[in-house]
Amino acid sequence: MSTPAAGAATSRVRAALAAIETIDRPEIWITLRGADELLAEAAAIDTAVAGGAHLPLAGLLLAVKNNVDVAGIPTTAACPGFAYTPDKDAGAVARLRAAGALVLGATNLDQFATGLVGTRSPYGAVRDSRRPGFISGGSSSGSAVAVALGLADIAIGTDTAGSGRVPAGLQGIVGIKPTLHVVSTAGVVPACRSWDAVTIFARHLATAELAMGVMAGNARDWPSDVRLAAPARPRVAYPASLPALPEAWAAEFHRNIQRLQGLGVDAEPIEFDAFLDAARLLYDGALVAERYAAVGNFLAEFDGGAGVDPTVAGIIRAAGKLPAHRYVADTARLEELKHTAMERLGGFDALLVPTAPFHPTLADVAADPVGVNSRMGTYTNFCNLFDLCAVAVPAGEVDGAQFGMTVVARTFDDAVAADIARLLEVTPEVPALFAAGASPSAGQPAGPPASSVPWPVAAGAAAVPLVVVG
Amino acid sequence: MSTPAAGAATSRVRAALAAIETIDRPEIWITLRGADELLAEAAAIDTAVAGGAHLPLAGLLLAVKNNVDVAGIPTTAACPGFAYTPDKDAGAVARLRAAGALVLGATNLDQFATGLVGTRSPYGAVRDSRRPGFISGGSSSGSAVAVALGLADIAIGTDTAGSGRVPAGLQGIVGIKPTLHVVSTAGVVPACRSWDAVTIFARHLATAELAMGVMAGNARDWPSDVRLAAPARPRVAYPASLPALPEAWAAEFHRNIQRLQGLGVDAEPIEFDAFLDAARLLYDGALVAERYAAVGNFLAEFDGGAGVDPTVAGIIRAAGKLPAHRYVADTARLEELKHTAMERLGGFDALLVPTAPFHPTLADVAADPVGVNSRMGTYTNFCNLFDLCAVAVPAGEVDGAQFGMTVVARTFDDAVAADIARLLEVTPEVPALFAAGASPSAGQPAGPPASSVPWPVAAGAAAVPLVVVG
Repeated sequence: MSTPAAGAATSRVRAALAAIETIDRPEIWITLRGADELLAEAAAIDTAVAGGAHLPLAGLLLAVKNNVDVAGIPTTAACPGFAYTPDKDAGAVARLRAAGALVLGATNLDQFATGLVGTRSPYGAVRDSRRPGFISGGSSSGSAVAVALGLADIAIGTDTAGSGRVPAGLQGIVGIKPTLHVVSTAGVVPACRSWDAVTIFARHLATAELAMGVMAGNARDWPSDVRLAAPARPRVAYPASLPALPEAWAAEFHRNIQRLQGLGVDAEPIEFDAFLDAARLLYDGALVAERYAAVGNFLAEFDGGAGVDPTVAGIIRAAGKLPAHRYVADTARLEELKHTAMERLGGFDALLVPTAPFHPTLADVAADPVGVNSRMGTYTNFCNLFDLCAVAVPAGEVDGAQFGMTVVARTFDDAVAADIARLLEVTPEVPALFAAGASPSAGQPAGPPASSVPWPVAAGAAAVPLVVVG
Repeated sequence: MSTPAAGAATSRVRAALAAIETIDRPEIWITLRGADELLAEAAAIDTAVAGGAHLPLAGLLLAVKNNVDVAGIPTTAACPGFAYTPDKDAGAVARLRAAGALVLGATNLDQFATGLVGTRSPYGAVRDSRRPGFISGGSSSGSAVAVALGLADIAIGTDTAGSGRVPAGLQGIVGIKPTLHVVSTAGVVPACRSWDAVTIFARHLATAELAMGVMAGNARDWPSDVRLAAPARPRVAYPASLPALPEAWAAEFHRNIQRLQGLGVDAEPIEFDAFLDAARLLYDGALVAERYAAVGNFLAEFDGGAGVDPTVAGIIRAAGKLPAHRYVADTARLEELKHTAMERLGGFDALLVPTAPFHPTLADVAADPVGVNSRMGTYTNFCNLFDLCAVAVPAGEVDGAQFGMTVVARTFDDAVAADIARLLEVTPEVPALFAAGASPSAGQPAGPPASSVPWPVAAGAAAVPLVVVG
C-alpha cells in the first residue's frame, strides 16, 4: 500500500467522526469510541509513521463486531445483560492494531451471532446502506454497513453459517471467510465453536487480503503443500439448480458464470444436494446444541427482560433440550455428506454460489423471522460445516439490490479462492450516503491498499516448493 | 517371513482344532467355523502357496473379535439379539484374508465392546490364559486369549478406551493400537465412532507389525512427512506418579524404565494430570453418548431378556439421557486437555505407561463391576481421545501376573512407537495350556514371521524424503 502522509490518520478520524454524525445510523454501533481517545491514538500512529515505523495498515479505520474483544469496550454480543469488559484485545484485533489499524468502535450484530438478517438486536435493526427499508444482512450487520458507507475501511466479522458473507453480498462489499481457525478465535464469544471463523470486510478484495494477511497466522498451521495460486485455467463448479433464488437473481448468477467463462475459466454444473442437506442439518438437527454450549448457561440464569432477543433466545433454549446421541449421529451424517460433497468437487478448483439468494425487507423478516433467515443461508451454511474457505465479492446488481458471488474452496485453498474471486469482483457505485472523506482512497489516487503476495503467505504459509528426491 | 511348506496351513488347522478341543475354553469363541470349511480353505491356501502365490500371511490362523464382520458368521457384538449375518468381510478382515490368513472363528468380547474386563458377555466370562480365577481383560477378551494360548497366530481386536491393549497386557502378548482410522472401520460395529480403532494381537511384535502392514491402508492418508523410525537416541516421557498401581507393579514399571535407559533411551518423568483428566471425561462426562448413538436405538427397542448384559445396558441407556450441549462442552474441554498433554510431551518421542495397572480376579470384578473397570483404563483411556497411537508389549512379571508396557506416540508416529516397543518386548514363557501345535514357530526354527520395513510403509506411507529447494 502507499503509506498515508503524516497526519493522515488524524484527518481520517476527524472525517469519519463527522460522517458518522451526518449519516445518522446509530444502530451500526454498540460502542463508538470517544473523539479524544481516537484522535490521541491517530496522532500516535501519525507520529510513528513520520518516524519511519513499518505499519502496513497505518491509519486504516477498523470496526469490530461486538462479539470480539476490544480492550476497554464492553463485549455484549448484542445482549446488554451478557456484557463484560475485556482487558485485552482479541488476537485478531491485536494483530490489526499492531499493524497500525485504528479501532473506531464496536458494531451491532444479530444477538450471539445467531441470525443472517441483522434485525435480531436490542440495539436496533441495522438497515441496508442504500435502501433503509431493507435489511443489512447479518449477523455481522454493523460491521458490513460501516464499511459499505465508508465509515470504516475494514471491519471484523464472524461467520459460522454465513455471517461474514451474507451481509457482504447484500451490502456490495467483500467478505473473506478464511479456512477455520487460521485466524485465532481467542477473545471471540463462541457461537458454535466447532465452526466459528473470524472474517474481514472491505470495499475491495485487495484491502481485505492485506488485512487478512495481518490478522491470520499463529493459529492453525498451514500444510507444507498449501496451494498459493489458482491454476492458469481454473475449473469451477456451480449448482445445477438454484433453490431460493428469484428468476432475476438466477439470471444474474448465470450472467456471472458466463462472464467468468469469457475470462478463461472452465465452469460446469454439479449436483448440489449434499451441500443443501448439510445446511438443513444445521437448522433442523442437533448441531445447534453448540449454541447452547456457548451461551445457554447465561440464558438459563437470565430471566428475560433487559435485552434478550426473543427469536434468538427461543432458538438457543430449544437447543439446550437436544440429546447428545442425536448430536453424535448428526456429526456422523455430516461426515458422510462432506464425503459426497467433496466427491462432487473432484477435479474442480472451487465452487461458485450466489452469496445471498435474495434481499428481504425489514417487514419480510418481521413476518417470518425464522423462515426468511433459513432461506438466506442456503448458499453459506454448508461451508464451515465442511471446513471450506470462501471469498464473497460484489458482482452486479439485480432489481435494485446488490448481487454478490461467493467462491468456495477446499480447506487451506484460500489463495485459490481469492484468485478466482478477483476475476469476479465488480465494485459497485457507492451508496448515496457514502462518507467519502473517511475512505482510504480520499486523496489517494492509487486506489485501495494492496499487498503483492497471496494473503496466506503473509499469514505464515511457506512459499516453498517441495521436490521428491527418492 | 519364511513361507510355510506346502500343506502347512492344513496341518496347522488340524492342530488348532485339536488344541481348541483339548484346552476346553469354549467362552473364547462365539462362532467357531466348522472343520470341513476350515480344512477346505486351508487346502486352497496350500495349493496357492505351492503354485507360487505371494501370500505374506499364508496359513496364519486368525481370530476375529465378533464386533467385526466376517462374511457368513453372525456379528453379535456379544449380544445375541443384536446379531446380523454380513455377506462380506469387514475391510480389515478382507485384507488379512487376501494375504493368506485363515479365519478360525469369531471371538467373545465385552458386549458392544463396552468394558475392559472380559466378563460382560452372555457367552461367558473369558478367563485368563494362565490363572482361570482371573479375568482376561477386555473388551477384546476372546481374541487376546486365543493368541495367548496359541490357538491363533494373530487376532483382530477393537479399541476405543483400551480394549486392544488391556487384554494384551494381562495376557502377556502384543497389541498394536494404530493411529485412528489408518485401519478402515468399515464393517465394524461402532462403540464410539469418533475414537474406535481396529487393532491386532500377536505373540511377537514382529508378527503383529507384519499383519498391521497388511490390515492398514487405503483409509486415512499418511502425511508426507510421517516419521518412519525412532531417533537413534529416543527421548521418552513417563508419568511422575502412578495412580491405581500397587507398589510391586510400580516397582516393575520403574525397573522397565531403567532397563530402557540402559539401552540408550533418555527417560524423564512428566506431570500426568491432563491425561488422567481426559480419562475421567470419558467415564464421568457426556462423551459416552457416542455409545448410545451406536447401539442405543437397539437397546431402546429391546425389552431385556435374551442376552443383554445388565452392566452394559445400564451404561448405554444412561448415555441416552445426556444433553447435547454437555457433549459439546466436554469436547471443548477435551481439546484443552489435549493441548496441555501435547505440551507435556514436547521434546519427547513417546510416552511410556503400564498397560494395565493391576490384574483383578473374576470375583473382584463381580464385587465392583464399574469401579474396577474404570481403574483398569487409567493408562489407556486418554489415548484415542487425543488421537495417539500405541503399542503394548509384554515386559515382565509381577506377583504371578503378566506385566505389560505400552509405548504411546503422537498421531502417525506408529513406526516410532513400534521401534521403542521393540526395545521393551520380553516374550513370556507360554501358558501351561499353550497349543504349540498351532503355533507358527512349530517346525519353524527361524522364529516369528517378520517384515523388513516399518509397517506404516507396508500400509502405504511414502518413504520419500523431501528437500526444500526455495
